[in-house]
Amino acid sequence: MKIISMVSAMQSLAIQTRQKCRCIGFVPTMGFLHEGHMSLVRIARNKSDIVVLSSFVNPVQFGPNEDFDKYPRDETKDDMLCEREGVDIVFRPSADDIYTNDHSVYVEEEKLSTGLCGKFRPGHFQGVLTIVAKLFNIVQPHVAVFGGKDAQQARVIEQMVRDLNFPVEIIIGPIIREPDGLAMSSRNTYLSQDERKRAVNIYVSLCHARRLYEQGVRNTSVLRGKIREIIETDVQPSEIEYIEAVDYTTLQPVTIVQNITLVAVAVKVGRTRLIDNILIP
Amino acid sequence: MKIISMVSAMQSLAIQTRQKCRCIGFVPTMGFLHEGHMSLVRIARNKSDIVVLSSFVNPVQFGPNEDFDKYPRDETKDDMLCEREGVDIVFRPSADDIYTNDHSVYVEEEKLSTGLCGKFRPGHFQGVLTIVAKLFNIVQPHVAVFGGKDAQQARVIEQMVRDLNFPVEIIIGPIIREPDGLAMSSRNTYLSQDERKRAVNIYVSLCHARRLYEQGVRNTSVLRGKIREIIETDVQPSEIEYIEAVDYTTLQPVTIVQNITLVAVAVKVGRTRLIDNILIP
Repeated sequence: MKIISMVSAMQSLAIQTRQKCRCIGFVPTMGFLHEGHMSLVRIARNKSDIVVLSSFVNPVQFGPNEDFDKYPRDETKDDMLCEREGVDIVFRPSADDIYTNDHSVYVEEEKLSTGLCGKFRPGHFQGVLTIVAKLFNIVQPHVAVFGGKDAQQARVIEQMVRDLNFPVEIIIGPIIREPDGLAMSSRNTYLSQDERKRAVNIYVSLCHARRLYEQGVRNTSVLRGKIREIIETDVQPSEIEYIEAVDYTTLQPVTIVQNITLVAVAVKVGRTRLIDNILIP
Repeated sequence: MKIISMVSAMQSLAIQTRQKCRCIGFVPTMGFLHEGHMSLVRIARNKSDIVVLSSFVNPVQFGPNEDFDKYPRDETKDDMLCEREGVDIVFRPSADDIYTNDHSVYVEEEKLSTGLCGKFRPGHFQGVLTIVAKLFNIVQPHVAVFGGKDAQQARVIEQMVRDLNFPVEIIIGPIIREPDGLAMSSRNTYLSQDERKRAVNIYVSLCHARRLYEQGVRNTSVLRGKIREIIETDVQPSEIEYIEAVDYTTLQPVTIVQNITLVAVAVKVGRTRLIDNILIP
């Protein structure tokens, strides 16, 4: 396994790899890897000859009061997990090599990124799209795999690939959960023992909503009401940012479930922001 | 010479060409080709194995009151010129194939694009960068050649390539002029006979400024004053948008010429908007 830190070295190697007609699979991450990331690596490995995993905590996608400074890091463990999972290249660039002092070009999405997390994290998706566009140009992947927990992110990236004609196939991996159901996230490490126990009820609330759907409920205000009730009672969050039901393609709110619907929540448990979602049907 | 209109066909061919280790040179244009474009083709041909010229009048870079609807077209003549100059592929996509109805992703530049033309054409450079990013992903060039008349455009594109890590070498061709000095432009066709005669004094004014510089003048307000005097008297424009002296790298106004300085003007002659520039020293 190679560990590459220079942007120029990564890009040269990627271009050479493409010239050898070898397929590049790519998993962009912010490091502090867990089983969720590893599941994406396995998808990438099945679809390609060379798997590149990037590890870069992207300052541009964090707001001024967010957790950029304390975002967890463990490069040694990350490298061990990557080695074990058969990653070929870990690309871990420095922020200085990624963003020059006078960086001034950004990619932005104007429709899908306005609701859900975009409403609460202004500039977030501009930061995400800018770094993903950069990484696509540096790593030159044929296939890139993103986690389904960040459902809006995945849709916004799909839109960028379509609208800017990136020759990259996007695959969205399913959410990987802890044994009790909590969606895996690097940020779960922030949770106290008590918060961790309460946090599981985010997923419990989504499962209730799914059950209601299966029992015939189609009105999303009923589904969202049930989720809110369980979250308020059992998660006891410090803040509920949103509980939304949106069309999975347009990310526009829906009142009656007809097409594939994304039921997504963002809550703060203590000071930790957690997101989760399910798709119905 | 191949003429390709489908985005998917162009992209597949580009990827195949790259896999054969053949170098792709690219000249993006809006058609209605003239000797200025052809000089760019020759530069591209010297630097590559396959020359692609795109011809697409990009609606997104025109303002609501600009000349998108009447922008001149002559595909037959364009194809003849391309054939004669050894262009391998003319890529002439339809607007529908380039922009879907729900297109929502744009590339924008926040520093270099605010002054000069950017001030008078809001959204213009966002439109330019978005189409150029798309074309780079579709045509997959190793080298792309842009004309020096649109000096700000060239700098903004260089910045995009750097900031988004496109693996593309940008070459800026020198301005090609009519025998009397008027910078070649597809828009010159709009000029009446009288306007055409007066328009030549745009370049005359820039030459005067260069002469003043050569005589030791370094104060840009003197240079700009001389240009304004000649333009007002001899061009008799319906509007002077700007007469600016800016640092060529940062595009920020300079008062004393020290580094390479772009002296650039934009004027309306009748209803036709014309731009021109020189670099000093």
